[in-house]
Parts: sequence; structure tokens; C-alpha cells
Amino acid sequence: MAKIPENELARQVMKGDRGAGARLITLLEEGNESAREVMKSLYPHTGKSMIVGITGGTGTGKSTLIDLLIHDFRQSGKRVGVVVVDPSSPFSGGAFLGDRLRMQRHACDEGVFIRSMASRGYLGGLARTTAETIRVMEAMGADVVLLETIGSGQDEVEVIRVAQTCILVIAPNMGDDIQALKAGLMEIGHIYVINKSDLEGSIQALREVEAVLSMKTYPDKAWKPRVLSTVATEGKGIRELVSAIQEHNVFINQGARADRFRFERVEYELSLVFKNELERLVHEGLKGTGKKKKYIRKICDGQSDPYTIIAEVLKNFLKKGSFDPEK
Amino acid sequence: MAKIPENELARQVMKGDRGAGARLITLLEEGNESAREVMKSLYPHTGKSMIVGITGGTGTGKSTLIDLLIHDFRQSGKRVGVVVVDPSSPFSGGAFLGDRLRMQRHACDEGVFIRSMASRGYLGGLARTTAETIRVMEAMGADVVLLETIGSGQDEVEVIRVAQTCILVIAPNMGDDIQALKAGLMEIGHIYVINKSDLEGSIQALREVEAVLSMKTYPDKAWKPRVLSTVATEGKGIRELVSAIQEHNVFINQGARADRFRFERVEYELSLVFKNELERLVHEGLKGTGKKKKYIRKICDGQSDPYTIIAEVLKNFLKKGSFDPEK
Repeated sequence: MAKIPENELARQVMKGDRGAGARLITLLEEGNESAREVMKSLYPHTGKSMIVGITGGTGTGKSTLIDLLIHDFRQSGKRVGVVVVDPSSPFSGGAFLGDRLRMQRHACDEGVFIRSMASRGYLGGLARTTAETIRVMEAMGADVVLLETIGSGQDEVEVIRVAQTCILVIAPNMGDDIQALKAGLMEIGHIYVINKSDLEGSIQALREVEAVLSMKTYPDKAWKPRVLSTVATEGKGIRELVSAIQEHNVFINQGARADRFRFERVEYELSLVFKNELERLVHEGLKGTGKKKKYIRKICDGQSDPYTIIAEVLKNFLKKGSFDPEK
Repeated sequence: MAKIPENELARQVMKGDRGAGARLITLLEEGNESAREVMKSLYPHTGKSMIVGITGGTGTGKSTLIDLLIHDFRQSGKRVGVVVVDPSSPFSGGAFLGDRLRMQRHACDEGVFIRSMASRGYLGGLARTTAETIRVMEAMGADVVLLETIGSGQDEVEVIRVAQTCILVIAPNMGDDIQALKAGLMEIGHIYVINKSDLEGSIQALREVEAVLSMKTYPDKAWKPRVLSTVATEGKGIRELVSAIQEHNVFINQGARADRFRFERVEYELSLVFKNELERLVHEGLKGTGKKKKYIRKICDGQSDPYTIIAEVLKNFLKKGSFDPEK
């Protein structure tokens, strides 16, 4: 292959250049075609990091915990990638900037690469760009990737699927969170952290989580979720959390499990890329027909409906390999 | 057309039967094909309601406001549909059930139809099912549709696009909300409501909203957003809110504006249906090839990557009109 700029970008990313990594991620978010070419060459060099998802409501102290985890992993010489999935809504909170600032103390450390993902505005959705960002970090040499999500909104919950180890962070006296556990997130957590455990109500929160977990039965060789208490602001309980993460990592890398995780990760990414490519077709397709206005007019005039129109357009597409009915 | 059950369901919906409406919406959520047939026949009978979106953070009192709006519209003999977009995340809040209960006082009123939308788990996404639910309510005879969203998460923000009139609810002393306004939601609000205006800080909140709005310049004939104060729990300010809604409704139904809204609504729905149909293709496509496992294995073994595989699959698809490479 001729030496093209794509190769140069791929080379820089592989060297761990953070500027190059950032550039590639932005290109991927924009749906840039050359970026996909770069990914093709990077892909075989990825897939070996430990991906840890950290999720929980606002105000539970996720970011402070992550800051400490970065510090701990760096102490043991690991290269750390951090993906922060921004809440998409302007309603979601003001504490965010402060949290981010705290994390920035690692910004000068070449062994840490932090990236926030915007939740909207990009072609192909947050899930795809998050999965791709993690691959880029792996190509850059990350040993650990920490994925912070706010645990609210379809997309944000969706992204956690790429994590091998899922940590749910709960703060005491936020009854909602316990309700939440009961409602559905019990299936995805490998480690439950009661943060701010110096606050009143923390023992009760711990008990409640344990009680909910105890209602589940686990097959003999399944992972039994851990429940831990931390006070992130004082660094309490962090060693235990790191140990639990490592334990889970050892667990999932035993025998066939490691294979299964890799398989499922690729399966998921495959569907994301597929969806993205189809969305591009939609986008170009509806634009390309030149008939869109006529279709809409027809529906507005009560002569048709979206279902009939789309069925027609697709039938045509399947017959001719093009959305343009004139072709 | 022969008399099929679809026709019977359509007939019942058109009669305003709430059981039939609920059934149809569930079928649509499940991606049921007959439900789409029903929609085809209902579609020409829809599009004439007033759609009012109410959005804001948790704890701002949206649901109480909506409860009063329902009451007010019912007093003037209007049939009211209410679509409540559930927060998808189990983290999102516990007040919700209580709010819903309050609204339930209208449950026995045949002129009110309330439907909560789950944010996940359904084929085709929340935006499509929300848009379809509103169409169903219109077919049932709704004069007004109130759409409550929590204003957080990509999907929840997205759904508000089908509303003609957007109300942003803010509570004082929730600094985040004001930040939020500055950050981005200023574009979508037609009416701003400072609810809980008996609380300290409400005048300041009002001033801040007005200040932010005053920074914008509006073209001569554009709608100038209204800012109102309410105390929903005491019913204060509700008449003014209803007047503002009606004023905006008159405004958008003047001349070409009414047409433009209808056009944009259909355009949006067209893209939702298109996307949904394509997603079904992905689903069936990736399953249908029978080669999925081989593809994944190839990627896991470092011999290929998702981009290359999907490009191949799509090339094949465009050539043959089928995802099955064996055909």
C-alpha cells in the first residue's frame, strides 16, 4: 500500500500520540471515511485492554472515584484511557465541569488519555463512537480503559455494554438509586460501590443492595457481585475496589470466558457499524431521491402515509440497489 | 379490502376506544406488522391536534402542571391525550410514581387518554413510538396532546421535536436549569414557566431567564418566548399558561406557518419510519446471512475488522437485494 496520510495517522496513534488519537476520534465522530480506513489497520492491534464501566446517578461521586482509580493504575505502571460519556441534556447538571477539572490533574501525564464523548449530533450514535474510541485507546497502548456513564438515557445505558467489568456507584440517602437497582440494573453490575459511606444511611444502603442481590441465585461458577463501601473524597476503600476489579478481571479471563467476551464485543461492534452504514444510506437515500418533498406533500394532503411511502422506496431500493426511483 | 381484524381495530380506535388505542400502541412498540397496516388507514384522519411538549428536570413540577392543564382543557370540552416519556434509567427518580398517581384522577374520564412510553427495549426507538402514539391519539379524537419529557438523554430531547408548542419548566434554586437554558435549550422553548414561584429565588430565576432570552434577537414576525410564573400545587398561574399556549397555537396556525409545521412533522416521521425499516433490515440481515459467526470469528482472529466485513455484506446486498451471500 502506498504511504498515505491515513498510514501516518495510524502510525502516530500506535505510538500512543495523544494528539493523533484525539484527531482520529473526532474524525470517527464525524463519520469520516478515511478514519474508517485508519481503523481497519488499527483493529488487529486492539482488544487486549481491561475495560471497566463506572455508572451511577449524578452526585454519587463517580468522577472522584475514577480520578482515584486512574491514580492507582498509574502507580502500577499501567497506561489508562478514560472515556467520559457526557450527559446529553443541558438539564443534567452543573457539577460536571468541576468533576472534569479534578480529573485534569492527570492531563500532563502521557500515560493517561481522557476523552469526553458528546451524546448527540454525530452520525451513527454515541454507542458506535464510544466503542470506536475504546479501540483507538487500545491501539494507543491503553492497558485499562475506564468508561464513565451517567446511567440515564437509552444511549448512556447502551454504551456500558462494551465494558467487561461494570461498577455501579450508589450514594446513601438517594433512595432512588436503590429503587433503581430493584428496577433493572441488577443484571449488569459486577461490583457495587456505596460511595460517600461516611454519610448517614450508608449502612442501610449497603444492606439494601446486599438484600436485593441475595434474592438472585447464581449458577455454581458464576461471578457473585461484590458490594463495597468507599469514601472517594478521602481515598477510603479504593484499594479494595481495585482488588475487586482485578479479581473480576482474572475471573473473566479464565478459559472460555475470555473468548466469549471478545466474541460478544465484536458481535456488538459489528451491529453498530452495520447500523451506521445503513443510516448513511438512509441519509443519502432520502436526500438522493429528489422526491422527498413530493412524498411529504402527498402525506400532508392525506393521499398517503409514511409506511406506504417507505415501503415503496425500500422495494425500489432492493430491486435496483439505489434509492433513486428514476434510475 | 376484506374485513380483517386490522379494520376492526382501526374502527375502534377511531371511535375513541381507549382499550383499542392502548392495544394498538403496544403493537406498534413491538414492531408488529399489522399495526402498521392499521396506521395506514388511520393516518389520513390525524394531524389536527394541538401538540404541547412540556419538558424540564426532575422535581420541577411538570406532572402537577400537566395535571392542571388536563383539567383546564377538559373544562373547555377538549379531548386530551397525554404521553409521558418515562425516564429510561432506573436511576432517574422516585417521585415519578407519585406524579403519575396524581394524574390518575383523570383515569376514569373517557375524554382523557394517558400513555407512558418506556424508553427502551422496543424496536425502532422511542422517537418513532412517541410520534406514532400521538398519531393514534389524534385518530382517537384528541384535540390536545400533552407530551411530557424529562429533558435529559438524547432520546428524550429528540421526542420533543414533534411538539408544536414547547414549554420549559424551571424551578427556582435549581441553578442547573438556568445553566441548562444558557447551554442550549433556549432554541426550543416557546413558553418558559418558573414553577414553584412561591419559593425563594423565583424572582431571580425569572430575571435570569428573561436576561438570557433578551440576548437573542428575534425577526420581526417571529414568536417571542413568554416567561410565566406558576405555583402548580396551588393552581396559581395556570390560566395564564393556558392563554399563552392558545396564543402560540393561534400564532403557528397563521398562514404558511401551519403548513410548514405539518410538513416538518411528516418529514421527521418519514425519517423515523425509514430508520425503523432499515433497522429491521439490519436485524434480519445480520441474522439471515448465517455467516455472522464466521465473520465474528474472523475479526476475533485478527484477520479482518467490522468495517471491511460490513462493506462486503452491504456490497453484496446492494448487488442482490438480499443479505444472504448464498443467494
